[in-house]
Amino acid sequence: MIKLFVIKIGGNTLDDVDQRVAFLKNFTAIREPKILIHGGGKIATDIGMKLGIEPNYVQGRRITDEKTIELVTMVYGGLVNKTLVATLQQLGCNAMGMTGADGNMLKATRRAAKEIDFGFVGDVTPNSVNTALLLSLLKQNIVAVIAPLSHSEGAILNTNADTIASVMSIALSKHFDVRLIYCFEKKGVLRSVEDNDSVIHRLTKQHYDDLLQQNVLVDGILPKLENAFAAIQHGVKEVLIGNAHHVLKNTGMETEGTLITLN
Amino acid sequence: MIKLFVIKIGGNTLDDVDQRVAFLKNFTAIREPKILIHGGGKIATDIGMKLGIEPNYVQGRRITDEKTIELVTMVYGGLVNKTLVATLQQLGCNAMGMTGADGNMLKATRRAAKEIDFGFVGDVTPNSVNTALLLSLLKQNIVAVIAPLSHSEGAILNTNADTIASVMSIALSKHFDVRLIYCFEKKGVLRSVEDNDSVIHRLTKQHYDDLLQQNVLVDGILPKLENAFAAIQHGVKEVLIGNAHHVLKNTGMETEGTLITLN
Repeated sequence: MIKLFVIKIGGNTLDDVDQRVAFLKNFTAIREPKILIHGGGKIATDIGMKLGIEPNYVQGRRITDEKTIELVTMVYGGLVNKTLVATLQQLGCNAMGMTGADGNMLKATRRAAKEIDFGFVGDVTPNSVNTALLLSLLKQNIVAVIAPLSHSEGAILNTNADTIASVMSIALSKHFDVRLIYCFEKKGVLRSVEDNDSVIHRLTKQHYDDLLQQNVLVDGILPKLENAFAAIQHGVKEVLIGNAHHVLKNTGMETEGTLITLN
Repeated sequence: MIKLFVIKIGGNTLDDVDQRVAFLKNFTAIREPKILIHGGGKIATDIGMKLGIEPNYVQGRRITDEKTIELVTMVYGGLVNKTLVATLQQLGCNAMGMTGADGNMLKATRRAAKEIDFGFVGDVTPNSVNTALLLSLLKQNIVAVIAPLSHSEGAILNTNADTIASVMSIALSKHFDVRLIYCFEKKGVLRSVEDNDSVIHRLTKQHYDDLLQQNVLVDGILPKLENAFAAIQHGVKEVLIGNAHHVLKNTGMETEGTLITLN
């Protein structure tokens, strides 16, 4: 099967213009078929503050109320997404920005209000993905640039970008040899969070479970790892967690970062 | 040739949720291939005020400075566009929201700074339109929903929605019998601006030139009429200016509103 790269980019790389452009140049240089999924960055919080939209927490969990979903629809679906697309177009990469509502790309289940009402939050599985549309875009050499928003019953919903990357990779794994690459500010999964050079270069499920028991891993990396193992357990060929600067290297044979493997 | 409706919707209909949903239901009910182009509405001004972004005028002309293009990218490309798309998806219309940067749909020329520097403003012609992409979407029964934004050299640019509707109609007129419909709050072009029933049901270029000389037409309608006549003079089969409530009727044989004809 043909190789496909599903690449997720988050926070810091989006917020800083130099880092962002450097990343997008590397991304454009990837010659294989590819998809980009982006997170939000800090800009939504900054703009929310100016608009008087305070972050809303219940029992320590962030709530996406009506004002907040309007904010992230503007910022993630508008400003961040279109800034990436316009730059990619300039670099010669035929990018098409989308939320999950566009072309019914990602139809979610709105999270039911139980103990906590999370508000406008969508949960997605590989079945949520409009694989036919992604295949059609790939066939036309159009690079989908996906904002972390899904939809259900007329509403735009907030959805974790790491999870979107994982479910899209799984959905496409029937058609491609997918390598899912999570890009972030560290070099990979670290043995010691203070030491940026303590990268675990290969992480099996068994090793991961051991590290969990030893409480070695910091909270921030856990959802990413859950999504990574979900992908590798459901047909995605390779999952890699690494630094955004190394994205081009991490599409090759000799990778930096952490390669996730089943065993 | 197959009939295609290019429909432009603006201001008031977008701002009011009941009017908007009523319009989108009618739009969804149109059975022929169709494209929707939307304006901005007042919401950008409202959000801009909250963000402290003051409208910037030079010699009475509105300038799109850097803060303003960020604002309209958020509001037009994000909030307004995705709200329309999510509602259309709910109604069973497979909408895909786009700016001119997405898939290189609309590549503009940035307006040169002469006496006035208009800032981030893009001028477009029928040659700016990525007709192949529109044809591909139409073939997949995907309904493009276009925000009034184009792009050039890595920048998102502000572009008049009436003009986008006109140039897209012209670009598609080689492939379809295009009826371009401008929807707004009045019933059509009015003989007397105070009398909403004084609709001119048929307006030829000669008649239009006469009315211009007589100073009968109010300023607001002139750019729309310029775009309408540009379309009809360059291959678009029919152009109609009418009320948003009558959009479904205006796709049929017995139209309300003003039918623009060459002679």
